[in-house]
Amino acid sequence: MNAARLTLDPNRAFPADPGTREIAVRIYEHVKDLPIISMHGHVEAQAFAENTPFPDPAQLLIVPDHYVFRMLASQGVNLDDLGVPRQDGGAVETDSRAIWKRFCENWKLYRGTPSRFWIEHELVEVFGVDLVPSAETADAIYDQIASVIAEEDFTPQGLLDRFDIEIISTTDPASSDLEFHRQIREQGLGHRVVPTFRPDAALTLTGPTFKAEVEAIGKLSGEDVSTYEGYLAALRHRRRAFIEAGARATDHGHLLPNTQPLPDEEAAALYGRAVAGEEISAEEGAAFEAHMLFQMAKMSTEDGLVMQIHPGVRRDHSTEILETYGKDKGYDIPIGVDYTRGVQPMLDAFGRNPNFHCILFTIDETVYSRELAPIAGTYPAVRLGAPWWFIDSPDGMRRFRELATETAGFYNTSGFVDDTRAFASIPARHDLARRIDAGYLANLVAEGRLTEEEAIETAVDLTSTLPKASYPPIAH
Amino acid sequence: MNAARLTLDPNRAFPADPGTREIAVRIYEHVKDLPIISMHGHVEAQAFAENTPFPDPAQLLIVPDHYVFRMLASQGVNLDDLGVPRQDGGAVETDSRAIWKRFCENWKLYRGTPSRFWIEHELVEVFGVDLVPSAETADAIYDQIASVIAEEDFTPQGLLDRFDIEIISTTDPASSDLEFHRQIREQGLGHRVVPTFRPDAALTLTGPTFKAEVEAIGKLSGEDVSTYEGYLAALRHRRRAFIEAGARATDHGHLLPNTQPLPDEEAAALYGRAVAGEEISAEEGAAFEAHMLFQMAKMSTEDGLVMQIHPGVRRDHSTEILETYGKDKGYDIPIGVDYTRGVQPMLDAFGRNPNFHCILFTIDETVYSRELAPIAGTYPAVRLGAPWWFIDSPDGMRRFRELATETAGFYNTSGFVDDTRAFASIPARHDLARRIDAGYLANLVAEGRLTEEEAIETAVDLTSTLPKASYPPIAH
Amino acid sequence: MNAARLTLDPNRAFPADPGTREIAVRIYEHVKDLPIISMHGHVEAQAFAENTPFPDPAQLLIVPDHYVFRMLASQGVNLDDLGVPRQDGGAVETDSRAIWKRFCENWKLYRGTPSRFWIEHELVEVFGVDLVPSAETADAIYDQIASVIAEEDFTPQGLLDRFDIEIISTTDPASSDLEFHRQIREQGLGHRVVPTFRPDAALTLTGPTFKAEVEAIGKLSGEDVSTYEGYLAALRHRRRAFIEAGARATDHGHLLPNTQPLPDEEAAALYGRAVAGEEISAEEGAAFEAHMLFQMAKMSTEDGLVMQIHPGVRRDHSTEILETYGKDKGYDIPIGVDYTRGVQPMLDAFGRNPNFHCILFTIDETVYSRELAPIAGTYPAVRLGAPWWFIDSPDGMRRFRELATETAGFYNTSGFVDDTRAFASIPARHDLARRIDAGYLANLVAEGRLTEEEAIETAVDLTSTLPKASYPPIAH
Repeated sequence: MNAARLTLDPNRAFPADPGTREIAVRIYEHVKDLPIISMHGHVEAQAFAENTPFPDPAQLLIVPDHYVFRMLASQGVNLDDLGVPRQDGGAVETDSRAIWKRFCENWKLYRGTPSRFWIEHELVEVFGVDLVPSAETADAIYDQIASVIAEEDFTPQGLLDRFDIEIISTTDPASSDLEFHRQIREQGLGHRVVPTFRPDAALTLTGPTFKAEVEAIGKLSGEDVSTYEGYLAALRHRRRAFIEAGARATDHGHLLPNTQPLPDEEAAALYGRAVAGEEISAEEGAAFEAHMLFQMAKMSTEDGLVMQIHPGVRRDHSTEILETYGKDKGYDIPIGVDYTRGVQPMLDAFGRNPNFHCILFTIDETVYSRELAPIAGTYPAVRLGAPWWFIDSPDGMRRFRELATETAGFYNTSGFVDDTRAFASIPARHDLARRIDAGYLANLVAEGRLTEEEAIETAVDLTSTLPKASYPPIAH
Repeated sequence: MNAARLTLDPNRAFPADPGTREIAVRIYEHVKDLPIISMHGHVEAQAFAENTPFPDPAQLLIVPDHYVFRMLASQGVNLDDLGVPRQDGGAVETDSRAIWKRFCENWKLYRGTPSRFWIEHELVEVFGVDLVPSAETADAIYDQIASVIAEEDFTPQGLLDRFDIEIISTTDPASSDLEFHRQIREQGLGHRVVPTFRPDAALTLTGPTFKAEVEAIGKLSGEDVSTYEGYLAALRHRRRAFIEAGARATDHGHLLPNTQPLPDEEAAALYGRAVAGEEISAEEGAAFEAHMLFQMAKMSTEDGLVMQIHPGVRRDHSTEILETYGKDKGYDIPIGVDYTRGVQPMLDAFGRNPNFHCILFTIDETVYSRELAPIAGTYPAVRLGAPWWFIDSPDGMRRFRELATETAGFYNTSGFVDDTRAFASIPARHDLARRIDAGYLANLVAEGRLTEEEAIETAVDLTSTLPKASYPPIAH
Repeated sequence: MNAARLTLDPNRAFPADPGTREIAVRIYEHVKDLPIISMHGHVEAQAFAENTPFPDPAQLLIVPDHYVFRMLASQGVNLDDLGVPRQDGGAVETDSRAIWKRFCENWKLYRGTPSRFWIEHELVEVFGVDLVPSAETADAIYDQIASVIAEEDFTPQGLLDRFDIEIISTTDPASSDLEFHRQIREQGLGHRVVPTFRPDAALTLTGPTFKAEVEAIGKLSGEDVSTYEGYLAALRHRRRAFIEAGARATDHGHLLPNTQPLPDEEAAALYGRAVAGEEISAEEGAAFEAHMLFQMAKMSTEDGLVMQIHPGVRRDHSTEILETYGKDKGYDIPIGVDYTRGVQPMLDAFGRNPNFHCILFTIDETVYSRELAPIAGTYPAVRLGAPWWFIDSPDGMRRFRELATETAGFYNTSGFVDDTRAFASIPARHDLARRIDAGYLANLVAEGRLTEEEAIETAVDLTSTLPKASYPPIAH
């Protein structure tokens, strides 16, 4: 394997059966070059506003990508040695070439994973690398990537063109002053880079930053957040500010998809105790989050922001990792969720309201056929989001289509929605999704369940029409 | 696509791999023309007794079929505009041609769904339609269907012959006087159309019709239902009347598959409070339902009625839909169930009793390999019912075979059991099931796990032998 | 079918697609003859120590194998008639030829099951049978198997060579005096047959043998087990004795994978009440089991025993079977488990400790992609065990690879771990696992997701490298 050539199979991720594959190839031809619609992600607004070049291969591809470093960690590599910053500011590896080599010499760990698929695509298509990663090839690959990174237009803004990204959304806390987005608009990119309103920290009474967050939104909105009414007004105000900055959606990542509203006075009392610094129990905190999800849905019917719900993840499973390296370090583990009963109050109230639109995501695959597809297949307000996080993978995406389509059809889904901090992986992720959808559709054609003409139209809809329709612009 | 020709691929729903497909075709040849055994469904006894012709295409194919109208509703079509009757008797669309056109112009919503598969089969095979539905073709298709509906023998009784239905079962409340079934028997069709005993409303203390239901069974049976003993006697009496009317099975659709019996005095007290009109809590109601499932199992050991359990659906998820249009309008959403602990009391008591037979159904696919197959693979009383409701679909049926067969084998399953209000879809549903089973068996042959001779025998067993054996006639 | 020839398809269990199959065949060539590593099973140490020949075909293949007799029971065959011993010593079938015939005449029940696959392999490869089992062929097959069983080296020790078993582990209670293992070592087989420490009975306060078990470990260890401290010391002592007897692992089969430790004084109080014969509630018992799983993990960090967790089975679902025939008689039914929250306390404490190694098993397949793969894909201490029990089957193993690999990769799995009481089925089980892994890898190659060279290396790792690395020898 020494210095084996790295190439991309043009038929990668298509079905193995030759007849089905031929159909998939023909379908894929119609979508492979369509622009990217990327309405949910974690590239920072600051990166676009300041348009700073990326420092080096490790800082671009390893350090910010928990998919990548968690796999190395799982085999005992220390996060310090991968350059992941410590909360205490303590020393971590700063030699990016050493970090890169640690990754390359463990290349075999990624066999069978989507990270492997994405990185191969990036290496070949984005960076022109033609070597298989290994301890021996690490330096040569590093140099090749570094040379591309050094190109003048290899910047966040430049990549919008390179990657043919029609529109991309950042994710921003409710307390963001949206200054970077203002700068982005000033640079004429307001139609291509938009914010998403993510108020989790302001809705989680038991969270470590709750008080700071509500104070910040109080200040930005000029509302008196010492009262529950002022708090709601401040949230409405921030939503409006986000809409004016181009936002089309909100995003909610609570543990549970529960939406049972509390009586107003009960909610107000809980809120009051929380801002007064009183102890809030876990049950009370969860009840308030459910109440506020309901309020967010209600506000969506008023202002038109599409509501995205990403539940079911037990964050920071390892206390040690949280304390040492902070959040989003690969130790977030999914749990089972009850969507049917969780979203019932919200959908009972707003699910047939033509001004309400929500997109439901899951990592718990058991709810696809049992709960989400039946819900999306009847409530006009609901679309199913794409397979999320760990299941944004070849087989994960196939299972989603297989488990959801028969009950929800294609037209109650959002089309592909990526979700990444790794900017350079965006084209690879969209390409993979297009291949998987083409393969799924090809199989329907091969089984006489769809005509090829319909399959092609559906593939285009999944790639372009549905993502755009799922996140419509809001007049302001 | 304008006026594209509608044809059925003779190899539809078979595996795409050519070698496996050839085997599937050979297996399917042995079962495709076998008579239909349809032991669970929702065609009304009245339809058979009165043998009334069907009014028109929309009233036959759209208005009674929640699979069809829920998909239109999911994209914002109002149920009024589909002619779904309102509870308040308010005006709804009465122009069947307009309803039909709304369906046809939304044809693409059904891509990838079993409804598409069934309807294409019906259009071509039952109605001789050769146009793809669209706004443009809607009228022509309507006329063609209407002309077939107008044929003299296109009546419920006539369809028994057209569709080669050997036997079909209706589903009837415990309070049914079985008068329509008496008329059916008088017309010499008692061997082909039989009732099923569905006592849910009489077992659900918290249900809106509980009191009316027990009063009705009291009257029909001549038992004093003011006491718990009288209530049990009335239920026994009704079961006997159903058996005399040809019934072979009971059917139970409670939320949970729980079967924990209560002490008799506790059950009697709960019952007494309910008939006295006292408030029964949700927990008490659920406990009584579990108790009564146990009692139903016990009665089955006495009278031989096969017990069908269809749990795990949160009915009437949308209060607005329930209030406006009533039950069974597409807003029933499944939940996860715990079968292992739920049915344990019942199976511990009767699961090895040679006089007890039950068939377990699920929409929660997670229990196939984890719970249902291990249960059916050891308790002689238990068979697994076919994939039910949303998962009565090409991929849903494949997953059932793949997830259940390895532990339960084929011979602890019931064979295909359809479940529909849409009479005209019955042959399509059985044809699809036969194709999927043929494909699954073909794959076992292709993988060297079964001989073709065995596969053919098994296919015949799944189509005829097992459905008949699962619902044996009861001497009376 | 009368006296049809029984043959094994050389391509059995490989993918049906011809191109993918060819790749699978090439991969399989590299692993098919590798020695067997069998680090978890239920063949008794006594059998190896005494090396007693097997009595007859029924006693070898039917009576000890609950996979086999549960399927017959599911169709109404009485366990008495299969020779399963009764707890009361009452008469059961002793005519092994009659038992064997009951099995053969029901051969079709096994269609599509892994038992069928294993038994066919055993009949052909181990016993040289070339007849398909049936009532007519039962006697001839019986005679043929009996003649092989009668061969001089067809003994437990002899089978180690015949089957090319490099190493096999028994499963032994904490109270085992390990005398049989001493005899095994004396016979020079200590490197090939090792014990596993299974302390369930000593950790389950509510179990019927708890007191007897702790008394036994007290006696063997010389510790005073009347106190909690003495109890922990006794367990440490027994673990040490097992290590000295060659053990590499512990095994834990509690209902839940919970690991929340109690405050020491609370644990000590519960223990004290239990040894004093006081009533322990189910909740208290479960809390103590969780506490002790945490303690076992802690001891593993001290002594190096790999911790195997096999949760999620509701044992003895049928009280009647338990009372009549005892445990492990086919009436153990899985339930859903919550691994994410269950193992969190243990992994938070030890999951990144380089001295801790655990292997997590499941029968609840819903946790593969949702919980287990994310956990194994980040905690260095964790590997995923192979599909267990009912899902140790062709499609079950495929689903495991498909659902776990994309997030955990291959190198966070243990490789194949069989789990059987049926000695003669061990080669068949390993052969099947190698075939399925070859097919899964071949599909990755066919889809352009892996090179064939990588696939071959991975197949060898799954067969040999990973099972050995997952259960390393402990210096003593």
